[in-house]
Amino acid sequence: MELNRIISAIKEKQSEIKSVFFVGCGASKAELYPAKYFLEGNAKHLRTSLYTANEFNYATPVSVDDTSIVITCSLGGATPETVEATTLAKEKGAHVIAVTHVEDSAITTDAEYVVYHGFHESYAAKMEKMTKVLGLATEILNQFEGYQHYEKMLDGFDKIYGLIENAVSSVVPQAKAFADAYKDDEVIYVMSSGATHEVAYSFSICLLMEMQWINSGTFHDGEFFHGPFEIVDKDVPFLLLMNDGKTRGMDARALEFLQRFDAKTTVVDAKDFGLGSAISSEVVDYFNPMLISGVIRVYAEQLAIVRNHPLTKRRYMWKLEY
Amino acid sequence: MELNRIISAIKEKQSEIKSVFFVGCGASKAELYPAKYFLEGNAKHLRTSLYTANEFNYATPVSVDDTSIVITCSLGGATPETVEATTLAKEKGAHVIAVTHVEDSAITTDAEYVVYHGFHESYAAKMEKMTKVLGLATEILNQFEGYQHYEKMLDGFDKIYGLIENAVSSVVPQAKAFADAYKDDEVIYVMSSGATHEVAYSFSICLLMEMQWINSGTFHDGEFFHGPFEIVDKDVPFLLLMNDGKTRGMDARALEFLQRFDAKTTVVDAKDFGLGSAISSEVVDYFNPMLISGVIRVYAEQLAIVRNHPLTKRRYMWKLEY
Repeated sequence: MELNRIISAIKEKQSEIKSVFFVGCGASKAELYPAKYFLEGNAKHLRTSLYTANEFNYATPVSVDDTSIVITCSLGGATPETVEATTLAKEKGAHVIAVTHVEDSAITTDAEYVVYHGFHESYAAKMEKMTKVLGLATEILNQFEGYQHYEKMLDGFDKIYGLIENAVSSVVPQAKAFADAYKDDEVIYVMSSGATHEVAYSFSICLLMEMQWINSGTFHDGEFFHGPFEIVDKDVPFLLLMNDGKTRGMDARALEFLQRFDAKTTVVDAKDFGLGSAISSEVVDYFNPMLISGVIRVYAEQLAIVRNHPLTKRRYMWKLEY
Repeated sequence: MELNRIISAIKEKQSEIKSVFFVGCGASKAELYPAKYFLEGNAKHLRTSLYTANEFNYATPVSVDDTSIVITCSLGGATPETVEATTLAKEKGAHVIAVTHVEDSAITTDAEYVVYHGFHESYAAKMEKMTKVLGLATEILNQFEGYQHYEKMLDGFDKIYGLIENAVSSVVPQAKAFADAYKDDEVIYVMSSGATHEVAYSFSICLLMEMQWINSGTFHDGEFFHGPFEIVDKDVPFLLLMNDGKTRGMDARALEFLQRFDAKTTVVDAKDFGLGSAISSEVVDYFNPMLISGVIRVYAEQLAIVRNHPLTKRRYMWKLEY
C-alpha cells in the first residue's frame, strides 16, 4: 500500500519522528482535520498540529526540522501559501508529503513524496483526499508508536468508499427538502463534534459562504452551550452533523436544545447510513467526516439548483489578484 | 512568583512532562488559546492541545497520564463539563492546574494547584485569566525545555496590564462609533490571526451571539481568502483585529481586500496602542490577545448601550437546565 511505503521510507531515513504538521487552506485545511484529530487522540509521544498555510509560513513553529513530517494539501496543487509552506518545510529539513489532485502541480515540486487523490469521478472520489490523509496518520502512528486498532482502521478504509456511494444514492429527497427550506435564509449555522468538527467548518465557509454567498457561522457543538445557543429562537436555521461514535452525546444534546426551542433544524446523522454497523466501534469516529461530507455535498448541490446559483460561481476567486 | 512555583512543584514530582492540555468552554476555552499557540510554536518536545471540555471528556486523549499537565479554566469555577474534565484528568494521574475567579469553586476540588485571577476590578483584571495561563505556559516551556526569550516574556507580563488600562482609557469614542455603525446589522464577521485568532472567535460567539443576540461568523484571516471572502460586498460588516507581530501581514492583506470592495470595516489594531514599542519583538505576538481583548470589551459595552441590550441579558443561560 502506497501510504504504508511512504511512511516506511521516511522511517528508514529518520527513525525518530517527533512532530507531524498538517498544513493547508480552507477546505483543504478542514480535510486534514480528521487525521490531526486521530493523532492527537491516539498518540502518546508524537506531537501534532494543524495550520492554515500562511500561519505556518509567517510564524513557523521552531519544531519544524528533520524530526518532523509535514503534510501539505491543495486540491489543485497551486494554492500559493501551501506551495510556499511545502518549500519552507523542505528547507527546514522536514519530510514533506504533498497531497493533491493535480499531477505535477506546483505543490509537488518541493515535496519528497506525493499522494494523488481523485475528485471528479464520484462522491467517494471527492472524499479520497481526507481519507488518504487519515491513512497517512494511521501509518505514522502504527509505524512510529504502534496502534492496537490498526487492522480495524485498514478495514474501515476498505469499506468507507462503498458506504459513501451507498449513502449519497438515497439522499436526494432529504437534500431537496433542505434546499427548499433554507434557500431564502439570511444566515445558516453549522455544527458538529469529534472528527467531524471541521466538516461543519468547511460546509460553513466553503459551501455556504464561498459557493452560495449565504451568511454562516460555525462552532463545535460542545461550545454551543457556552455562547452561541443564545442566538437560538423559533426558526433560526441550523444544520447539525451527528456522529456515530464517542462524541454522539454532545451532538444529541445540541439537537435536543434546538428542537426544544423550535429552531429550524436539519440533521445529517451518520447512523442513518449504517456507518456503525459496518466499521468497528473502536475506530468508527474517524470515518464520520468522510461519510457526512459526501452526504452534505448533495445538500449543497440541491441548494445550488434551487437557488439557481452554481457551486462554481465566484465574485473574486479565479477572477482577480488578491 | 506563584506560576513559577507551581511548575517547579510539578517538576519535582515528575521530571518528564510530555504533554500539556488546555481545557475549557466558550470564552474560557478561547482565553487558553494564546498559551497553546505559544507552546505549539516554541516547544521542540512538549506536545500541546486545546479542547472544549466535553470533547476532552467524551473522547479523552490516550496521552492524559502522569506525564501530562492539564490546565482547566472556568471563570465561575462551576462549568459542569470543565469540572468533570478536572476530575477526569486527576483520575488519569495528570498534574492538574485549575484557573478560576471564584475561590473554592467546584473546579478547585480535584485540582492539585489553583490559580486565581481578577475580573470585576478593571479591564486589566479581566485579562488576568488569559495572561496567567500564558504565564503558566512560559514557565512550563522554560523549566522543561528552556526558552531563550524567557526574560522578555517576564518583562511583557510586567507591562501588559498597564498597556491595557492605558489603551481602554482612550477608546470610548471609537467604540461608540463602532456601536452606532453596527447596531442594526444582521450579521457581523470577526477575524484575526496569530495568538489573537480565538479572541476573534470569542468576540463572535460570546460578545455578539451570546450577549447581544447578533448573528456572527468568525475565521482566521489567513483562511479568509479560501472561502469566506466571497461573502464580501459593499457594506458587509467586518471587525478585523490586527496584530503587532509576525502575522501582521495576514491581517493587512485581509484589510486591503475589505477596503477594496467597500465592506463595512472596523479595525482594532494593537499598533495603535504602543504594544510593539513597549514589548520586545521576539515575544510581542503573544501579548496582542490581552491588549485587543481589553479594547474590544469597550466596543461590546458601547454596543450594549446603544442597543439597550445589557451584556448580562440572557434567554437561556442561568435561567434553565439544558
